[in-house]
Amino acid sequence: MNNDKVRAAQMALERIPEKAIVGLGSGSTATVFIELLAKKAKEEHMELTCVPTSRQTEELAASLGLRVVDIDLVDHIDVTVDGADEVDDALNGIKGGGAALLFEKIVAAHSHKNIWVVDSSKKHHQLGHFKLPVEVIKFGSRHIYKYLDRHGLKPEYRLLSDGHRLSTDSDNYIIDIDIQGIEDLDGLANQLKHLTGVVEHGLFMEICDELLVGSTGEAFERK
Amino acid sequence: MNNDKVRAAQMALERIPEKAIVGLGSGSTATVFIELLAKKAKEEHMELTCVPTSRQTEELAASLGLRVVDIDLVDHIDVTVDGADEVDDALNGIKGGGAALLFEKIVAAHSHKNIWVVDSSKKHHQLGHFKLPVEVIKFGSRHIYKYLDRHGLKPEYRLLSDGHRLSTDSDNYIIDIDIQGIEDLDGLANQLKHLTGVVEHGLFMEICDELLVGSTGEAFERK
Repeated sequence: MNNDKVRAAQMALERIPEKAIVGLGSGSTATVFIELLAKKAKEEHMELTCVPTSRQTEELAASLGLRVVDIDLVDHIDVTVDGADEVDDALNGIKGGGAALLFEKIVAAHSHKNIWVVDSSKKHHQLGHFKLPVEVIKFGSRHIYKYLDRHGLKPEYRLLSDGHRLSTDSDNYIIDIDIQGIEDLDGLANQLKHLTGVVEHGLFMEICDELLVGSTGEAFERK
Repeated sequence: MNNDKVRAAQMALERIPEKAIVGLGSGSTATVFIELLAKKAKEEHMELTCVPTSRQTEELAASLGLRVVDIDLVDHIDVTVDGADEVDDALNGIKGGGAALLFEKIVAAHSHKNIWVVDSSKKHHQLGHFKLPVEVIKFGSRHIYKYLDRHGLKPEYRLLSDGHRLSTDSDNYIIDIDIQGIEDLDGLANQLKHLTGVVEHGLFMEICDELLVGSTGEAFERK
């Protein structure tokens, strides 16, 4: 197991109350956190209810003995721990490398606190080193692709290793775009969300409340 | 067959060029139009390529011998003929009574001209007599329902006759809301589209280019 990821996950673990509704992110760092959380919950008899952000996370958490419920069965989520593909100085970030951005964003939207666990390689002054995933309805998606292409965003359909297009948990496509050099991220987020056929995008603006960096042990709170 | 619908459909028929890419709407008036279009296309050897807005329309058009293709196989649509559940004086409207609003909006977005065919009962000074459909991702939809409820929009999940929730062609739910008395429809449209988990809504602002009213024979162009 990657030591930085374990350290970040351990830092997050300290922030989970004995009794809480916990949102479980997706991806490799979130997976480490879920494994540690399940162990601690068992040892310390924590009273946790967990809300997963993907089918994969749901299966993992349930297999480890965590109590997993659908998001619609809780009124809110106390704290969600998730990874991020890239984070800037203001704690805005890009998520969706694992194609779970839609459910991740829905869970985040209903969480009182969002903690992101990353290693220092994910932290950048300005976003754009990582491609921004845009989740689109399959029907008519080529027209969105062309629109993004016309706007110089170098779109690429997310593919599986077999060359077919990836389908998300909601049976949509992901189109990854290049946002290097774009300063007005709020404007971009608005523009994308307004396109008919775009379901969601991976720009998470003003969502992360606390960022935990495993490699350095640092914790940053959103100002 | 309803005479008003036939008359509106006939008016639309006159506006279809001999050779065109035609968007086919969904619902009862659109169905009348498709039947008349298929007949005329055969008789007059029109060179039409048709893009459907729902599975139902796709099956109907193909069964009548029209050439039907997926929207991603054409670069644009010349003219789309669709119905509407309600239209105001500015030709803004509410669509989605048939739960096909998402594909209808995607086709409309890529159409050079959008013609709506209605009877005069659909025309109102201000929108709101008809419920506004909001298409939402199933995951977390109860939280959107509660949000809409808190905002006094009297949300109701669209149900099938057997009491189960309706699933759209994209496997989402429809939540119908009451927008009577809301003046700032652009603001409402923005607010809805920005909610994480909302895929699309049935407010069609500045989309209809020409409105054909079967019961009176009137044609209105958007200013």
